[in-house]
Amino acid sequence: MSDNQPSLTGFEESASLPTTLPGMPDAPSPAGVPNPKADIAALEELERHLYAHRYAQIGMECYGSTIDPEAATQDRGEALAILQEEDQALLCSPATGALLDRLSAATALLTPTQAAQVRILQRDRASQVDVPPEVASSLTRLLTESGDAWRRAKGAGDWAAFEPYLDKIVAKMREVASYRNASADPYDIWLDEYEHNTNRAFYDRFFGEVKDVVVPLLADVQKSRRPLGRSPFEGRFDTNRQWEMARDLVRLEGLDERKVFLTTTEHPFSDGLTSNYAIIACHVRENDVLANVFTMLHEGGHALYEMGVDPSFNYTSLKGGTSMGMHEAQSRFFENYVGRSLAFAPRLAEVMARQFRGQLGRMTPNQLYVAANRVEAQPIRTEADELTYPLHVLVRYEIEQLLMSGEAAASDVPKLWADRYKSYLGINVPNDARGALQDTHWATGLIGYFPTYAFGSAIGAQLKDAMIRGGLDFDGVCASGNLAPIHEWLRERIWRYGRSRDTTEMILDACGEPFSPSYYTSYLVEKFSALYGL
Amino acid sequence: MSDNQPSLTGFEESASLPTTLPGMPDAPSPAGVPNPKADIAALEELERHLYAHRYAQIGMECYGSTIDPEAATQDRGEALAILQEEDQALLCSPATGALLDRLSAATALLTPTQAAQVRILQRDRASQVDVPPEVASSLTRLLTESGDAWRRAKGAGDWAAFEPYLDKIVAKMREVASYRNASADPYDIWLDEYEHNTNRAFYDRFFGEVKDVVVPLLADVQKSRRPLGRSPFEGRFDTNRQWEMARDLVRLEGLDERKVFLTTTEHPFSDGLTSNYAIIACHVRENDVLANVFTMLHEGGHALYEMGVDPSFNYTSLKGGTSMGMHEAQSRFFENYVGRSLAFAPRLAEVMARQFRGQLGRMTPNQLYVAANRVEAQPIRTEADELTYPLHVLVRYEIEQLLMSGEAAASDVPKLWADRYKSYLGINVPNDARGALQDTHWATGLIGYFPTYAFGSAIGAQLKDAMIRGGLDFDGVCASGNLAPIHEWLRERIWRYGRSRDTTEMILDACGEPFSPSYYTSYLVEKFSALYGL
Repeated sequence: MSDNQPSLTGFEESASLPTTLPGMPDAPSPAGVPNPKADIAALEELERHLYAHRYAQIGMECYGSTIDPEAATQDRGEALAILQEEDQALLCSPATGALLDRLSAATALLTPTQAAQVRILQRDRASQVDVPPEVASSLTRLLTESGDAWRRAKGAGDWAAFEPYLDKIVAKMREVASYRNASADPYDIWLDEYEHNTNRAFYDRFFGEVKDVVVPLLADVQKSRRPLGRSPFEGRFDTNRQWEMARDLVRLEGLDERKVFLTTTEHPFSDGLTSNYAIIACHVRENDVLANVFTMLHEGGHALYEMGVDPSFNYTSLKGGTSMGMHEAQSRFFENYVGRSLAFAPRLAEVMARQFRGQLGRMTPNQLYVAANRVEAQPIRTEADELTYPLHVLVRYEIEQLLMSGEAAASDVPKLWADRYKSYLGINVPNDARGALQDTHWATGLIGYFPTYAFGSAIGAQLKDAMIRGGLDFDGVCASGNLAPIHEWLRERIWRYGRSRDTTEMILDACGEPFSPSYYTSYLVEKFSALYGL
Repeated sequence: MSDNQPSLTGFEESASLPTTLPGMPDAPSPAGVPNPKADIAALEELERHLYAHRYAQIGMECYGSTIDPEAATQDRGEALAILQEEDQALLCSPATGALLDRLSAATALLTPTQAAQVRILQRDRASQVDVPPEVASSLTRLLTESGDAWRRAKGAGDWAAFEPYLDKIVAKMREVASYRNASADPYDIWLDEYEHNTNRAFYDRFFGEVKDVVVPLLADVQKSRRPLGRSPFEGRFDTNRQWEMARDLVRLEGLDERKVFLTTTEHPFSDGLTSNYAIIACHVRENDVLANVFTMLHEGGHALYEMGVDPSFNYTSLKGGTSMGMHEAQSRFFENYVGRSLAFAPRLAEVMARQFRGQLGRMTPNQLYVAANRVEAQPIRTEADELTYPLHVLVRYEIEQLLMSGEAAASDVPKLWADRYKSYLGINVPNDARGALQDTHWATGLIGYFPTYAFGSAIGAQLKDAMIRGGLDFDGVCASGNLAPIHEWLRERIWRYGRSRDTTEMILDACGEPFSPSYYTSYLVEKFSALYGL
């Protein structure tokens, strides 16, 4: 196929795969004669096809868990699996490998964007090239089915109905990991998938530092006699009005509504097809107005990041957030550092009172601040206060390790879950729907993703500190209700780069030092000591 | 590539296209040695890839005009154009041509389904193989843009804003037609696209017969002094309740709700991704409850057909309706022959009164029947009574001919439109939004589609006659509110075959004779003579 044939791999040995396809580069004709211009054109052609597939697949996945009829799940899974086979064939062909090798050896001739495209495509290719296509597509099929099975199981509070899916997912994810790197720990492989350059050693250290601060702090808070109330926010809030409020929150957060499709789903998420199209899927529960507000701000933060990527990256592999940790840093930034701040409370209170004049017309911003930050050990991660939040994540991180190492099976999870919630948060898990079935992640193959929530929270604290040190009047901006200066700071240093720069590198540049969890732990100590008068 | 190289064509001459791709058959290895088993496997593989693309593309197009943000139009158009390039490459490659040729020469070894797949794929291939890919994809891009331009132009009632798009669409559709068959009339090519084996000669004859009956009948109706009122249905009807009613109508029509996504759009449509997933997109206008009811029944009829196709065709090219005329036969069957019948009126009245007890609680089924059938020359096609309906279609058919022959440009359309509405229907067109901008078809490249609405109505009348002659108690079934016997009759003779049989053939088998417009004209004469006491 090419003079620059890479060594044989799992992918390349597979007989069932074609060797040329639309968007795939031709082998260079005169052996050894470089033609960088043709190679760059071939790179752009490859990117166009990958873009079209990405656009179709992200849409199918997003609509799949929001608006598609459940009866169509298997048909969608089949279509997604086939499209993914095509992507993998496109990216993993020897011709594509040779093209990327030639281009990466000729970076002097590339623009910085092209050089980044080559680097990211090589990384993406490396993660797929050794995985047999039938293994990859069987995982896709399994995850489409199990996403629906989880929805039903959660609805029925029936862990046993989900159990066989989780065992199969773990087995399949271990299998995929073994193809990627047979000598590495499979869980490390997936941690690295969602956050490049992380592994259990990294997260063990990180969670160790966080636990050392949070556990004693939580104990102090729980001993404190200061009562923080949330009475104005109890009771039922009309769901139609809550959806109106959701639209107002999108605007307050600074999103361009004309580019957002706001829809409903069981487990909130957001995604971006291009910088012109973000999907925010949330639920709205009648008896949980406050949780809905912060969920919306969280998903809106993800959408801000997706839509803040340089629009010229739209049709390339550089589109999207650079890592899940950095993504969660943005979502939790707007949920917490902005959303749960005292400075922003008056603006948030205005938006809430606009839709609920009767129920919230007399609430004060301080009541909102207090209610939004009241520490309460309860079973739901997405409704957790900032202090207990990392402990919810830690529970999942520990159970994922046991599953991926084979030390636990799906049937052990409810007990592991209950024991850890008892020991870290001091609470009893009421049932599986509010226990191990609460999150959609495992059902959609996101084992290894949870730790990025805590990591992202910590990145956010460090970014906020850097903003303020750099002269940004953080509280003043929040109080003004016009978040543009915060957007601009983040856009300049993080968002616009999309996948062209790594998390580590951007933190270093934005903050002037490498990542450190101390900003996060200091923030928690300061905020909750003040709130609880410790 | 293969020993069975077809002659060079526009497609095959194109240098920019790859020659092998995922799903494309390999060249048979030992020259001349047939291997039908491998060929059949290659056929299934080809179908799988075409299926995945079709699933993605139908979804993108449906969501595009319903839920996607307008800001994303261009990005979606680009993705669609690229996917379509891939489809065309897959279907039109010489290797695929050779495979289909080999299979069609070995039909004795194929199941009837496989033989039908080969025949339909050959037909699809023939319609694309001579069109240069860049011409096909530039039409896709243009249509995605113009769909949005039309929506804006209609909103603003601004024909001039849409004019340049229509001129470009006509030019591009003429160009595509010229590649398909340089010696044929370009309008005939597109008529055949939407209804196989039809052309202007066919439709001229058909509309001639219809006009000879409808024009004098309409004159008699307009002279009649019998006043048919619609007072209970005037006024404003809450749109939320109308959406609830739409769900009830879906159920009454006999659709499986668990397989339907019901959503909102400017111009109603429906489509089917597989037999497990139909999309029905309608609008609901506060002051037009009756029009909404019949629009819903119409789109539901399309969905019944899509979901009635043999489920084993889901992942093949046989999925979907066989032609637009047959599709409209189903939609207009449930809209009119069932929906606007006296026998069905009590069941429809119940559903409407359930949501609008105050406004419609005292309406009688006869009032509903009369209001649904009152003849009124008015400017909107989709709101037309059955008698004036074919005249609305005729206006469009005549203007399409002038556009496609170059005798008229887009700027001439408003006057052509006004003149014909005056002459056929005796009314003045109030403005372009309620005139030439009312329908989305031209903006989405459906020039040549309109005639199938009238043709479909006529097929429906013939099918209804055959049902009754065959012993089905049509009025009794309608009166029972359980339409299953009608569904089964149509499923058995039409729906289940998907694209595996042609319209002509199915009419012949179902009715025992070839298509004839006389059932349609007799039905109109009988129904409206009775209603107006002629």
